[in-house]
Amino acid sequence: MDRDQLMNSYAEVAVRVGINLQEGQHVLVQGKLEHAPLMRVLTETAYRAGAANVSVVYSDDHIRKATIEHGDEDALTWSPPHLLAALDHVERSGGARISVSGDAEPKLLSHLDPQRVGRAKMIELAHMNMSQVNKRSVQWTIVACPNEGWAEAALGEPDVDRLWEAVARANRLYEPDPVQAWWDHVNLLGERADALNEHRFDLIHFESERTDLRVGLHGAGRWISAKFTTASGLSHVPNLPTEEVFTTPDFRRVDGVVAATRPLQMSSEGVTVTDLTVTFEGGRAVAVEAATGEEVVRSQMALDEGGARLGEVALVDRASAVGATGLTFNNTLFDENATSHIAYGAAYTFCVEGAEGLPPEQLVDRGINHSSVHTDFMIGGPGVNVTGVTGDGGRVTIIEDNIWQL
Amino acid sequence: MDRDQLMNSYAEVAVRVGINLQEGQHVLVQGKLEHAPLMRVLTETAYRAGAANVSVVYSDDHIRKATIEHGDEDALTWSPPHLLAALDHVERSGGARISVSGDAEPKLLSHLDPQRVGRAKMIELAHMNMSQVNKRSVQWTIVACPNEGWAEAALGEPDVDRLWEAVARANRLYEPDPVQAWWDHVNLLGERADALNEHRFDLIHFESERTDLRVGLHGAGRWISAKFTTASGLSHVPNLPTEEVFTTPDFRRVDGVVAATRPLQMSSEGVTVTDLTVTFEGGRAVAVEAATGEEVVRSQMALDEGGARLGEVALVDRASAVGATGLTFNNTLFDENATSHIAYGAAYTFCVEGAEGLPPEQLVDRGINHSSVHTDFMIGGPGVNVTGVTGDGGRVTIIEDNIWQL
Repeated sequence: MDRDQLMNSYAEVAVRVGINLQEGQHVLVQGKLEHAPLMRVLTETAYRAGAANVSVVYSDDHIRKATIEHGDEDALTWSPPHLLAALDHVERSGGARISVSGDAEPKLLSHLDPQRVGRAKMIELAHMNMSQVNKRSVQWTIVACPNEGWAEAALGEPDVDRLWEAVARANRLYEPDPVQAWWDHVNLLGERADALNEHRFDLIHFESERTDLRVGLHGAGRWISAKFTTASGLSHVPNLPTEEVFTTPDFRRVDGVVAATRPLQMSSEGVTVTDLTVTFEGGRAVAVEAATGEEVVRSQMALDEGGARLGEVALVDRASAVGATGLTFNNTLFDENATSHIAYGAAYTFCVEGAEGLPPEQLVDRGINHSSVHTDFMIGGPGVNVTGVTGDGGRVTIIEDNIWQL
Repeated sequence: MDRDQLMNSYAEVAVRVGINLQEGQHVLVQGKLEHAPLMRVLTETAYRAGAANVSVVYSDDHIRKATIEHGDEDALTWSPPHLLAALDHVERSGGARISVSGDAEPKLLSHLDPQRVGRAKMIELAHMNMSQVNKRSVQWTIVACPNEGWAEAALGEPDVDRLWEAVARANRLYEPDPVQAWWDHVNLLGERADALNEHRFDLIHFESERTDLRVGLHGAGRWISAKFTTASGLSHVPNLPTEEVFTTPDFRRVDGVVAATRPLQMSSEGVTVTDLTVTFEGGRAVAVEAATGEEVVRSQMALDEGGARLGEVALVDRASAVGATGLTFNNTLFDENATSHIAYGAAYTFCVEGAEGLPPEQLVDRGINHSSVHTDFMIGGPGVNVTGVTGDGGRVTIIEDNIWQL
């Protein structure tokens, strides 16, 4: 398949599976200037699939750069009204949203003051987004558009066709019927989540040469696969690709040291964090070290009360189609789906029974984190064993030698 | 000066003169993907000049194309909420707006159904925009960003540097102090408007081999130069470049035949209208002929009651810095400033005393046009004489041999 065919196929999966578009819905397509080729195909595909109308909102990292360089403190955290309106309209109209990732200039912000880069966050927009995700009011998905800059970062050469091929493999686009392959795959992930839920683990223990981390879970928590269901009952798949099963930790019961196993490309910060190690004590990150990007992680964690607390724990093994490519994509959408990962910052409330719709204070009282940050980083892979610990101290191996055991 | 220097200088004029930015104002920058280089510089320049924050909203002709090809009838005229919100915020926050023109693919829509192309108009957005212009609630300006496609259309070759040079000449960027040169220039245009206002002409008569058009004026009308003043008293210059003095006709008293003297690049329709001739009878266009683009003009005029009526008459002579380049830019912002022009569609209410703020029906009752359309086309140049006729039938030459006479 050539690039155009892959793009059409990916768009089809995004529209039919990612957002599972229904006739007459509004669709919002968001991405950066460098994603225009895929955004145009997504727009056509959405119209062909029966969208009532499609809004396309472009952003530009150079504008973000100008704001960080020249804007005052208020400008750094300001949410442009057009972005709020776009998101708000999707929810109010009962619509769906597709976001495109894959930075063309991943190092663009790397020479700027890291503290300002870390503080530069559209806070109202981030909360609106997280609120919609937690209310399950919108079908949403994230895809990625290969481009020269991203190919350079992922492959060491600006070979866009080679990156498209890897993106296609990770997204099952070479299957005879990619749409059906995706529904089958997320049903399989659902079975993994069911198995975890049957064990009712009290905590998850990550162990390797550099990691010894215990992540407490909620009694009322549940593991979820990437087949989401909106409040109105529509299935959709928020990440393309996705390979994970995940849940919301009890942030108060997170202790130990964890080493990232892959570099973390912080897309909106334009910074790559390498060799990250975080130490948690009593639920807070008390030490952060990294070879590069340390300051950005620190300032993100300092952004609000919940920045330094855990919001997500997710399990992935080597059966992952992303992992099977053997690549580090330098893009969280892919790399988090190659290995197990955790996220500091906001939690998904729908993973804890009875938590949906609670105000932030009550969430925090129950050990469910609230923050304007949500940053995933990868902690799994060969040499990292994952064990489930039950309330009575029983230990059950979940992942060993990077192979799912449950 | 190299391209970067010209871009910085143009941005400086746009920010200091075009919107006359005041410390702490919000700025909205709007343009298409191909205008990113200038939009980024405008953003930096606005921040340096004291903008509180800058919103940047990109549009993409390919999305417009997809909507025309695949959207249903409602989608054609739908205004995306993010665009409405961006415009609305500028007004509510007391901000300023810079729009960028200069199409990279002027023929992109030319093979589509011209009736659908003509109907494809974001109607609510157009009315909001016209309302802000007429309320004078926002400092706004339009600039242009050279790119390969536009250079090809204007010069017959994709020489972006050569087009930048022409744009710079038309915009006085080679003057020692372009910002001061611009204030001087618009003051001169103000003197022309004053002279026209002293004569209190009852109608304007355009005559050439192919044109014999009488345009009635309002007793309470006034000629205006491109130095605008907002309701709050700030001067700004809405078009860069601008060379015109203009007023609002009494649309009921427009009769005769008028031939366009330059091709008309209809930016949002992606169509070039050539050899346009329009016949007016009792204030309505009753015949439209063109070598290309005729259908798009017809369907625009049919869009609403006011589409086929006149909304603007503007006078320009050969002293124009745009005209002096000798180029047809294939871009209305420039070409309308090379010669006299008229516009079918919405009128500027601020040109008629007592009309500002009147509801549409009352405007129409007074012969001031209301429409969601406003399309300028060029009718002046060598061989076209312009005469002012007073209430008692006296005739005064305004432009002869393309030279201002008044």
